[in-house]
Amino acid sequence: MGGVTTQDRADRAERVPKQDRSRVTRQRLLQSAVDCLAEHGWAGSTVSVVAERAGVTRGAAQHHFPTREDLFTAAVEYVAEERCTALRALFPQGAAGDRHAVVAALVDLYTGPLFRAALHLWVAASDEDQLRPRVTELEARVGRETHRTAVELLGADESRPGTRETVQGFLDMARGLGLATLLTDDTARRERVVTQWAALLEQALG
Amino acid sequence: MGGVTTQDRADRAERVPKQDRSRVTRQRLLQSAVDCLAEHGWAGSTVSVVAERAGVTRGAAQHHFPTREDLFTAAVEYVAEERCTALRALFPQGAAGDRHAVVAALVDLYTGPLFRAALHLWVAASDEDQLRPRVTELEARVGRETHRTAVELLGADESRPGTRETVQGFLDMARGLGLATLLTDDTARRERVVTQWAALLEQALG
Repeated sequence: MGGVTTQDRADRAERVPKQDRSRVTRQRLLQSAVDCLAEHGWAGSTVSVVAERAGVTRGAAQHHFPTREDLFTAAVEYVAEERCTALRALFPQGAAGDRHAVVAALVDLYTGPLFRAALHLWVAASDEDQLRPRVTELEARVGRETHRTAVELLGADESRPGTRETVQGFLDMARGLGLATLLTDDTARRERVVTQWAALLEQALG
Repeated sequence: MGGVTTQDRADRAERVPKQDRSRVTRQRLLQSAVDCLAEHGWAGSTVSVVAERAGVTRGAAQHHFPTREDLFTAAVEYVAEERCTALRALFPQGAAGDRHAVVAALVDLYTGPLFRAALHLWVAASDEDQLRPRVTELEARVGRETHRTAVELLGADESRPGTRETVQGFLDMARGLGLATLLTDDTARRERVVTQWAALLEQALG
């Protein structure tokens, strides 16, 4: 939120109806929560830290998200939905366009701050009883939505035996590639793997 | 260490030469460190906790591993090497045997406590400057060794263009499948994906 001053915000607030302002605040909190989780991990991510980052009072943040779990699970879901929507918009023709580009874009879902944030949340949930059921549900919902998007954009015919598992395995590969970018810049290797597997998927999906 | 009493240990200690005892202590610490990391994550894993778990004094543990970073990086490397060695022993004929079984066994490398421990270490390293270079080196070494093992057991001919990337992408998929077991029992889905991808690899590797 670098160059935005309090005066700017006040000016903007006057022009925007109350309901829209509430929606904007909510979105700003969600995006800040993902960025915070990606940068500082679960231990360093609280409602207060995110509120400050988003330029919102702690009270306003808690009005939208009563608990820490509410805020961070909603944030990962919101940003994941945004990314899927953006991806569909990028390939309005789906597989009728360039399948290699679709494969590369699907892999890119797992190489940015969103995946890093989700990974921190998953690992924390594996140790924390309070967080686990929330994140398990979230993972299932986001996983289904990503699978649907992948099937559509790849033009995969799931009535053909094995196609569902081909797409699932490819998305597992994409998650594994995301994991490989956690500590080092894995771009060059990843691009070679994506090129090879785009060709293999082309054969497998027909 | 359930049923082992102090007297048992003393009896055993008398029969075992000092050097061997030191090696046994070291191995016990390394295995306990991986189990501890898998169960309690990085935040809950210290030299003291591992020493107690292994039935070793804190002083003895620190004699073998002066720092927390030393202990846990050595532990993940040791257990990863053990798993690779066990895998090679399981398939003395490599790809001359059953390639589907080899694929399933390679995926299994990523579904147990070792992968869970490694994942905790990677995620912690992404936030901690002191840990990051150690874990980055470790990941590179273990990754190379696993790749070598996979190439050998799959009977993959890396002189053929694309084969290297085919195997790499498959191992990325295996890591992604490991990630999917973090919060829920993903066995049934994983087995279907492995069956399908074993068939795709069969075609791709020839």
